[in-house]
Amino acid sequence: MLIRVEELEDVFIQRLEEAVKIPSISAYAERRGDVFKMSEWTASKMRELGIEVTLKPLGKQEGTDLDLPPLVLGRYGRDAEKPTVLVYCHYDVQPATLEDGWKHDPWALTIEDNGRLCGRGTSDDKGPLIGWLNMIEAFQKAGLDVPANLVFCFEGMEENGSFGLRKALEEEATGFFADVDVVCIADVVWVSDEQLSIPQGLRGILFYLVTITGANQDAHSGGFGGQISEPMTDMVNIMSSLVDSSGKILVPGIYDTVQPVTKEEYESYNKLNISEDSLLGGTGGKSLHETQVDALIARWKKPALSLHRIENARPGAGAVTSIPAKLVGKFSIRTVPNMKAKDINLLVQKHIEERFASLGSKNELEINCAHESDWFYESADHWNYQAAIQATRNVWGVNPAITCEGGSIPIALDFKEILEKNVLLLPVGRPTDGAHSINALRLFRAAADWGSTDVEKLDKSNYINAIKLFGSYLRGANNLWRENKKV
Amino acid sequence: MLIRVEELEDVFIQRLEEAVKIPSISAYAERRGDVFKMSEWTASKMRELGIEVTLKPLGKQEGTDLDLPPLVLGRYGRDAEKPTVLVYCHYDVQPATLEDGWKHDPWALTIEDNGRLCGRGTSDDKGPLIGWLNMIEAFQKAGLDVPANLVFCFEGMEENGSFGLRKALEEEATGFFADVDVVCIADVVWVSDEQLSIPQGLRGILFYLVTITGANQDAHSGGFGGQISEPMTDMVNIMSSLVDSSGKILVPGIYDTVQPVTKEEYESYNKLNISEDSLLGGTGGKSLHETQVDALIARWKKPALSLHRIENARPGAGAVTSIPAKLVGKFSIRTVPNMKAKDINLLVQKHIEERFASLGSKNELEINCAHESDWFYESADHWNYQAAIQATRNVWGVNPAITCEGGSIPIALDFKEILEKNVLLLPVGRPTDGAHSINALRLFRAAADWGSTDVEKLDKSNYINAIKLFGSYLRGANNLWRENKKV
Repeated sequence: MLIRVEELEDVFIQRLEEAVKIPSISAYAERRGDVFKMSEWTASKMRELGIEVTLKPLGKQEGTDLDLPPLVLGRYGRDAEKPTVLVYCHYDVQPATLEDGWKHDPWALTIEDNGRLCGRGTSDDKGPLIGWLNMIEAFQKAGLDVPANLVFCFEGMEENGSFGLRKALEEEATGFFADVDVVCIADVVWVSDEQLSIPQGLRGILFYLVTITGANQDAHSGGFGGQISEPMTDMVNIMSSLVDSSGKILVPGIYDTVQPVTKEEYESYNKLNISEDSLLGGTGGKSLHETQVDALIARWKKPALSLHRIENARPGAGAVTSIPAKLVGKFSIRTVPNMKAKDINLLVQKHIEERFASLGSKNELEINCAHESDWFYESADHWNYQAAIQATRNVWGVNPAITCEGGSIPIALDFKEILEKNVLLLPVGRPTDGAHSINALRLFRAAADWGSTDVEKLDKSNYINAIKLFGSYLRGANNLWRENKKV
Repeated sequence: MLIRVEELEDVFIQRLEEAVKIPSISAYAERRGDVFKMSEWTASKMRELGIEVTLKPLGKQEGTDLDLPPLVLGRYGRDAEKPTVLVYCHYDVQPATLEDGWKHDPWALTIEDNGRLCGRGTSDDKGPLIGWLNMIEAFQKAGLDVPANLVFCFEGMEENGSFGLRKALEEEATGFFADVDVVCIADVVWVSDEQLSIPQGLRGILFYLVTITGANQDAHSGGFGGQISEPMTDMVNIMSSLVDSSGKILVPGIYDTVQPVTKEEYESYNKLNISEDSLLGGTGGKSLHETQVDALIARWKKPALSLHRIENARPGAGAVTSIPAKLVGKFSIRTVPNMKAKDINLLVQKHIEERFASLGSKNELEINCAHESDWFYESADHWNYQAAIQATRNVWGVNPAITCEGGSIPIALDFKEILEKNVLLLPVGRPTDGAHSINALRLFRAAADWGSTDVEKLDKSNYINAIKLFGSYLRGANNLWRENKKV
């Protein structure tokens, strides 16, 4: 099969070129037509390979008159002697324009001399998506059977809140997805360019809005400073009571259910080959930790509380010396096993209410947990993970590290909770791919989007190896599933 | 003279109408031509009345290619037997558009049935400026001599930082203004609609920028929360160390030089007739004080520290869950007698530096006092004030209260420091005139701009009485100056 893959390279690259040309930006209403066009393109490419395709409509985007792009569902093979793997990717992309500082036209695949395939979506997530189709073609051209039944679930709203996905998963759990054995999400990257990895965990997130209201309108600080109650004073006091400068969360009880780091984890993280720059994601940030292993533990195995911003909630406000009448403070907490979002929420609300009461303030307080998503964690002992570990070793010649991600990918948890199957996050690209470059919207989406590149790219080696990686993964899955079945 | 004033009403109102028509907005570069047009209009009206006029050019606006509008300097009378009063007003205005929610076209004088003269600049400050010209005309038509020599200083950049004024005052202190006895600034309003007043004091201001830098670019809170040092944590900690929810400033030593409130001041403020709504300026804010007198003391006689905002200093930042890399916190301190700006600045810098050091933070701190202006205070015993008190009583039939303003008017202090003469702030309009309505820029300008009206207006009674007020003031000044000279 290896020979076949190299021979088909031109076909594969042309396929990616076609996909990159369609600016399927889910965040912009005026590009929604292109997201639909991309769903049609994807469906037609799948059909050409003999995949049965169903476009599942998802209705309107909540609060708008916009149609959501369909889930592109596919099925390839129905052999009872093979495991059935649900493959998730997304065919929408982040916004991009030349004016943002892109080196090349983001909507034309540009191949640089060093083998970088540049263009929006090459790494996130059109490259990996097409990788699955390329793999099927490679098997077909080699006259070989794909070693697993495949159920495809390709989404068109991933970069814009995954609207409609959860409901669709619930609807299809006992329908289209009824016979799925495991899930493989190909929408993550290695922990660093130097260190191949497979993540087994993601942190959860609780996102808070704290509103403090003092007056109906902003007041002049000359006229009213010292005379009226100022919401900003309460806001900074409450915010400063949540976390200290060493990163320690000050909400009582919040660490009580945090799972201790095992000796094995400590030793494994200690051995990882991650450069200082990769560790800080090129942000130039100052590490709170002396060693790599402590930094990784803080990112992967400990909760964190970040204060994001304090916004003036009165429209038209802007006077430099005004006393803001109403403020919204935003912060979030990243959670890890075995913290329970609901319990943590109670601790946070209690702490803020008590702190506010202690101030004797005349203002009004409102706390709102606007988003709540639990952490995700899978045992790497499962055959789904073992197959991925073997495949990575086969293709790249090194053992991948079993890591976590500090961010939150709510859809991973959705698949796990709704389908009740093991969910694998299988990296294709590298963290420096610039998946969300440049100046992208980064709502609740996490992933390794800290690349500060002037393009989005996927190395040709990663693109071509994805085909081998997927094939090898399915072969391993087939073997391990069968062994597992015998036992 | 009283009869003459009423007879000339139509002429006076027509004069205001012409002035309102010129949108002399100093804040907008594209309106600079109209500011110049307004200076020409003002000069021509002055010349018609026999005032000698000089337009003093002020050069370019710093950091721009824009010409500053001239100071319109005027002289009326050179009688050694009369006092010489420098009259300051400004002929530029705040921005205004119908789209902002104005009830009438802001650039057309609209007279409502209740006698409100509506239009941008009617109260701030074209109405008072024209009041001086109307007064001269009234004296002329009555065949009477104006009781004082007048030196006019009409500015065109008051609403946009008074660029160039201070330098011009320094240049003319021993020139055009050499023989000035006292200064009268007609650019303030009563303390409330119910309570006529003359302010004798203004608070000073120290405006601070606190910059905390952690990284080169914003980071994803999923990827880096708990791993890198977050500037926002330090920022809210420092800000919360400056002031508490009762309005008490927490910077050690800051109250040490504050002049105690005298028994006379307490009793005088206690007697003032100010409605609850006026006291809070219609903001709906919650008072920190039980009684009116305590609220007024807090506004006029005590320092105050207001936290204005925390801004993300990296361009293009905006991710909801990001860790801001660099922040600028803005706060200001209003000062009162006998606090010295330079000493207070040292206390504040020391406090912030010590607090930051105690955090053990890995971020970088920078403190910048961007604006520093001392308080202003005049004794009401001076004949300049006594003349104004008498005039107010003569025209309105009630004794004005001697009050202060919580805000800061740097030009008042400039006149006082540079000319070394007594400076009077003589109110013409009311606080509900909406001088800076709606959504106006309110930089370091204070005054009573908390009106939340849907127009700017000047009551006809205030416009017409201004003429009598100015005339009566000059007559009183003449008498008291002569008495004073004899002694």
